[in-house]
Amino acid sequence: MPLNIPDSDATRVVIIGAGFGGFRLAQKLASQKMQIVLIDKNNYHQFQPLLYQVAMAGLEPSSISFPLRKSFQSKANLFVRVAEVNSVDLENKKIETEQGNIYFDKLVIATGAKTNFFNNAEFEENTIPMKSVSESLYLRNKIFEDLESAITSNSAAEISKFMDIVIVGGGPTGVELAGALAEMKMHILHKDYPDLNSKNMNIYLIEGKDRLLAGMSEQSSEKTKVALEKLGVKLLLNARVQNIQSGRVILSDGQILKTGKVIWAAGVTGAIVHGISQEYISRDGRLLTDDYCRIKGHSDVFAIGDVARMETTEYPNGHPQMAPAAMQQASWLGKYLMGKTQKPFKFTDKGQMATIGRNKAVAEFAGLKLSGFMAWLIWLMVHIYYLIGVKNKLFVLLNWIWSYLFYDQNLRLIIRPKFQGNTIK
Amino acid sequence: MPLNIPDSDATRVVIIGAGFGGFRLAQKLASQKMQIVLIDKNNYHQFQPLLYQVAMAGLEPSSISFPLRKSFQSKANLFVRVAEVNSVDLENKKIETEQGNIYFDKLVIATGAKTNFFNNAEFEENTIPMKSVSESLYLRNKIFEDLESAITSNSAAEISKFMDIVIVGGGPTGVELAGALAEMKMHILHKDYPDLNSKNMNIYLIEGKDRLLAGMSEQSSEKTKVALEKLGVKLLLNARVQNIQSGRVILSDGQILKTGKVIWAAGVTGAIVHGISQEYISRDGRLLTDDYCRIKGHSDVFAIGDVARMETTEYPNGHPQMAPAAMQQASWLGKYLMGKTQKPFKFTDKGQMATIGRNKAVAEFAGLKLSGFMAWLIWLMVHIYYLIGVKNKLFVLLNWIWSYLFYDQNLRLIIRPKFQGNTIK
Repeated sequence: MPLNIPDSDATRVVIIGAGFGGFRLAQKLASQKMQIVLIDKNNYHQFQPLLYQVAMAGLEPSSISFPLRKSFQSKANLFVRVAEVNSVDLENKKIETEQGNIYFDKLVIATGAKTNFFNNAEFEENTIPMKSVSESLYLRNKIFEDLESAITSNSAAEISKFMDIVIVGGGPTGVELAGALAEMKMHILHKDYPDLNSKNMNIYLIEGKDRLLAGMSEQSSEKTKVALEKLGVKLLLNARVQNIQSGRVILSDGQILKTGKVIWAAGVTGAIVHGISQEYISRDGRLLTDDYCRIKGHSDVFAIGDVARMETTEYPNGHPQMAPAAMQQASWLGKYLMGKTQKPFKFTDKGQMATIGRNKAVAEFAGLKLSGFMAWLIWLMVHIYYLIGVKNKLFVLLNWIWSYLFYDQNLRLIIRPKFQGNTIK
Repeated sequence: MPLNIPDSDATRVVIIGAGFGGFRLAQKLASQKMQIVLIDKNNYHQFQPLLYQVAMAGLEPSSISFPLRKSFQSKANLFVRVAEVNSVDLENKKIETEQGNIYFDKLVIATGAKTNFFNNAEFEENTIPMKSVSESLYLRNKIFEDLESAITSNSAAEISKFMDIVIVGGGPTGVELAGALAEMKMHILHKDYPDLNSKNMNIYLIEGKDRLLAGMSEQSSEKTKVALEKLGVKLLLNARVQNIQSGRVILSDGQILKTGKVIWAAGVTGAIVHGISQEYISRDGRLLTDDYCRIKGHSDVFAIGDVARMETTEYPNGHPQMAPAAMQQASWLGKYLMGKTQKPFKFTDKGQMATIGRNKAVAEFAGLKLSGFMAWLIWLMVHIYYLIGVKNKLFVLLNWIWSYLFYDQNLRLIIRPKFQGNTIK
């Protein structure tokens, strides 16, 4: 099967990945005299910062996903292809996908990050990652199925296995999940599941460092810690996971947490495409680029966003693997490919934020350190602003207003696409 | 595993099925001095009349589904159990479920209808049914995946296999699906898939009778036929499906339609629970009841809605298998079980309606026969009215307004709950 991209005299720019970086770059280049091919394994862009709300039944997948084809409807030079990339051949400028092969003039690798299990098969087998809409929906279904199972169980050990949740990783994802779970326990559990004792649900958050949100200031870490503890989250700082087996997490100090659900939010690594020589890959699994986003030695191959590691004096370990770096690199690369700039890329730190719960967040930007209601309001506004699609903005906002007014998220549905009793390939 | 329903002196009424009948009955009885156990295999009530809009990417599953636990949050005597019923033992008043067994004082079977493949294994294997949210989502994913596959195909035969759709059954579901598909073809296909020639998409609607919507007047049938033909739907009336094989439908006149997607909307039969003696089951697969909704010979076992067949002088073949009969029987049975009526059930025909597309519907009620914009407006209002949940009403309405203004439904996402690359059990 071919990818069916028409021949053209225009420069062909192939972008792999339609996340924050790839999607924005495609937008920038869509009206240029270039042939743009945007390849993603999904037919939609997903807004990763809100994945945890999909998992927590606060938002529908569709509210944070935007169909790629709709985004580029009137762009005659832009071709969306839903395909899994098998490998790239940088020397011959060739990409092999499940759906066929394609040659490029310029290649932009924007494949983002994937969950880092640190090559530990047990971590991978026995935990639930949360890096995609699909994984978030899986987690949502699992949480509510387990609560149903807890109701029809009469062994205390089994009930706690169904109710307890362990989150590994105290970064923004872990903090936001823990906060949302704690609020669900507080506001919804006893109402929806009167047969269960909500006190039996333990939410553990495990972090290897001595504080949460290590990317932010100690002050924000401390506020986050206090807020989560007030919500009833059991924090285990300086705690190392030694082993995760089916039904239990073993910490290096010997402590054992028994649970049926371990959420893995302990780190990411680059989602490297096959075929790239090891010499271009950093030890933390990212593509090494110069400060023109070029993979070293290749003037026509670029990497942007979470998959890239641009080591600079200011950022010797590369930029933070977050949306702002990806978007800024995309904007810069767009200009560069149009010939509008020759200056190297420079990152502007826009700050960081994380939400903890209702009226509670921490935010740091422009020298400010905010927490509480103001930080929460800014968090809401920033997320609505960056969400793709007017309808998505509207529906997310309405959902949030609804949840805020009624202390209820309302999407506690266990739904799978099914057909004749079988889950379908 | 037990169902963990506490012992009680109150009469225990077990309701199997939370569709229009079971859900409404549970609402009626929830505050009575009875113990109500509501069993459903899903944790939500689904609004079946709008399933086709989920399949057609017009609505999110959550908009037409309502969590059962949320509906009955403050009802201390009502117990929701998400369980698959294996069988009932009417003589010993016992129900066996996957999650454990339970005894009843009174039993209400409200299991609804299931797709009728007329015992033809080939029909069942090679077609897609659309009787649940899960099946509708499956169909949505399949439609949009196939369009992606059509783009990366270069055999005309394969492309038409991916694009063509055959719908079997010219009742409301078939008509509504065909209309929605035709409008997608007209308004969206060429914009989202400029690489495809939208003329290559053929939408076939097959009906064995000589007219569509056989439950309505000939006038409405004719208007529906004209409207669908104008939308480009290929109608095959008086057409009988002889055989359905992978990739093709063979009609009894020898005609062969090649297609990768056959949607089966050709009929339903009762979703009978195992363990009920054949003598209580009608030839069309429903539970025979007297006009007190009682299964003959059992004063404490009732059947309501699509699964029931109450033969009366006016309705010698039972009532129409539609929401109004189920809801009216539920309301009546609620009163009867509370001792508030001794009169037998009597069905009030509220009429019928079907939507064909934008501004187009047919509706018959109170002696009126409406079509066009007025019928369409009434269709919208009736569906919003009967939808469960204020938020669902609001979100469905907003979605409809959005689609109406922008000729676009916007939910063309291929999403499955996935985990580590595997679709999960």
